[in-house]
Amino acid sequence: MKAREKPVSGAAIDAGDAAIAREAALIALDWGTTSLRAYLFDAAGQVIATRVSTAGIMNLPVPAEEGGFDAAFDEACGVWLAQAPSLPVLAAGMVGSAQGWVQAPYVETPASAQALVAGIVRVRAACGAEVAVVPGVLEPGALPNVMRGEETQIFGALGAAGDDAEPQTALVGLPGTHAKWVVVEGERIARFYTFMTGEVYAALCAHTILGRTMKHPVEPDTAAFLRGVSVAREQGCVGLLATAFSTRTLGLTAQLAADEQPDYLSGLVIGHELAGLEAALARRDVTLAGCAPQLIGAEALCERYRMALAAFGCSGAHLVRQATEHGLWRIAVQAGLVTPR
Amino acid sequence: MKAREKPVSGAAIDAGDAAIAREAALIALDWGTTSLRAYLFDAAGQVIATRVSTAGIMNLPVPAEEGGFDAAFDEACGVWLAQAPSLPVLAAGMVGSAQGWVQAPYVETPASAQALVAGIVRVRAACGAEVAVVPGVLEPGALPNVMRGEETQIFGALGAAGDDAEPQTALVGLPGTHAKWVVVEGERIARFYTFMTGEVYAALCAHTILGRTMKHPVEPDTAAFLRGVSVAREQGCVGLLATAFSTRTLGLTAQLAADEQPDYLSGLVIGHELAGLEAALARRDVTLAGCAPQLIGAEALCERYRMALAAFGCSGAHLVRQATEHGLWRIAVQAGLVTPR
Repeated sequence: MKAREKPVSGAAIDAGDAAIAREAALIALDWGTTSLRAYLFDAAGQVIATRVSTAGIMNLPVPAEEGGFDAAFDEACGVWLAQAPSLPVLAAGMVGSAQGWVQAPYVETPASAQALVAGIVRVRAACGAEVAVVPGVLEPGALPNVMRGEETQIFGALGAAGDDAEPQTALVGLPGTHAKWVVVEGERIARFYTFMTGEVYAALCAHTILGRTMKHPVEPDTAAFLRGVSVAREQGCVGLLATAFSTRTLGLTAQLAADEQPDYLSGLVIGHELAGLEAALARRDVTLAGCAPQLIGAEALCERYRMALAAFGCSGAHLVRQATEHGLWRIAVQAGLVTPR
Repeated sequence: MKAREKPVSGAAIDAGDAAIAREAALIALDWGTTSLRAYLFDAAGQVIATRVSTAGIMNLPVPAEEGGFDAAFDEACGVWLAQAPSLPVLAAGMVGSAQGWVQAPYVETPASAQALVAGIVRVRAACGAEVAVVPGVLEPGALPNVMRGEETQIFGALGAAGDDAEPQTALVGLPGTHAKWVVVEGERIARFYTFMTGEVYAALCAHTILGRTMKHPVEPDTAAFLRGVSVAREQGCVGLLATAFSTRTLGLTAQLAADEQPDYLSGLVIGHELAGLEAALARRDVTLAGCAPQLIGAEALCERYRMALAAFGCSGAHLVRQATEHGLWRIAVQAGLVTPR
């Protein structure tokens, strides 16, 4: 997939934009909390242009009540819509939350792609375009779980494996601020877990005593990372509240250098996530070692997870690229917004 | 124990101070990171005056290299020493750390009160007084643990039970920023665990998404707290990184009000601490239900722990008051700094 990616910069239309717009068949938005990424697809499902901005729903150029969503939308897609005003538009992510442009109520698990399509909610932009917003997924229960945006990536990852694949069980991991692990059964999101791994790691580094003795190395320290993973795996039962303190005490006792501490703590936190996942899977007699998880996310972070998973005996993890684009396209097709050529 | 407690305020000497100084037999300092508490004891081991300040070792009135420790010491004890310059002085806590006034190297576990006495390091104050500094305790190993100040409180709590008590196994809990759980065997600190419970709770509230939907209630919500404890106890294996997110999702699904969320999360974090402790104790076939832990710390916090422990089947937990004062006195006597009347 070769796309011309450009950051958003005013609404100037150049000849390239006009040429692109003639091929275009769909605009699709990945609109999260801190960023907005707009994709222009041709009728074959290829991304022909991408525009990225920081206008996430918590970072709109003007407040929401003053037309912030319209302003961000125009900034991202105005040049395309000026050339092709009738292009269908699909959006996924936090844009459909209670704090978003329009609320697309959660679809409950088990959630199929068809259920997501049925839950689409539409909002009319000031420019006249109708934006179809994909709902998130809720797993109800004593400890409910929610996702918005990941459901689209997951169906993109599954679609990438071939639409004709037999219904099967798959494990999909989405590392990040709030990492998600999703069990897919028969092409439905059956259940999932959220781990606040990225956000807790950042808070531990920036706002606890652990950060005070850390020096961030120029290159990630893989050995220190895997040492942290190993401690979490072997001593996991005592919990992160206890093992995290070893970042400090190993430093105090000259067993962990200042520039090893960030990666060691990262390994601890990710290791505790995987130990928790392993325990959750064990309730249904599933082991990480028996899974070949698909990983969706930033490549370097997914590589860290791949190494950590290997320490848990899970050697088959692999990165799925462009899951977001594939998922948006797949849902748009299934919703009848676009007819693939 | 009735003591006249006054905040530090200059070095003015009043008639009361002079009268107190005539009865005095020992000055003892609990000198931590963020506070300095000075006790004046009579020869019967009673606290006859207390002076408190915020001049912890990370909060000195002037920088350490400009005489900050002397300045804080004079401010806290100058009025007493002016009346009775030959009073012995004992200090415990972070004042003996690498960042302290003088480094008192850790005593290794198993650590007796006698070993602490043998590890005392002395520093001469500018005013001429000699300050005896109690060492901390280190448990070496793959995940080392350290304490400074708690060792003194622990021997205070044990001493309070009667010095002639038979050697026995005791479990002592010290809730707080870095909660400690200490196993005492035969009057020695045998091993201990540190949980970053208070600090992680504060970081989660102030620096993650969980804080955004919280309203802090006027009165602590015990039901919400115990609900959090129960979730941690029952779902603990999935780990705090996962259960913490339920603070948000229970809110999103209208199952947990904004003003219930702080106590619910507090219950979760303390519950994970106790679940981790239970797992650590289980390695030696000990259960929380079979223990009657002594709790040392702020009364309201210890009461929360008492309730949480009861949820783990441990009904015999009880608060030990004035463990710090008792411990300082006990170590001073054992070190020969003072002869009890």
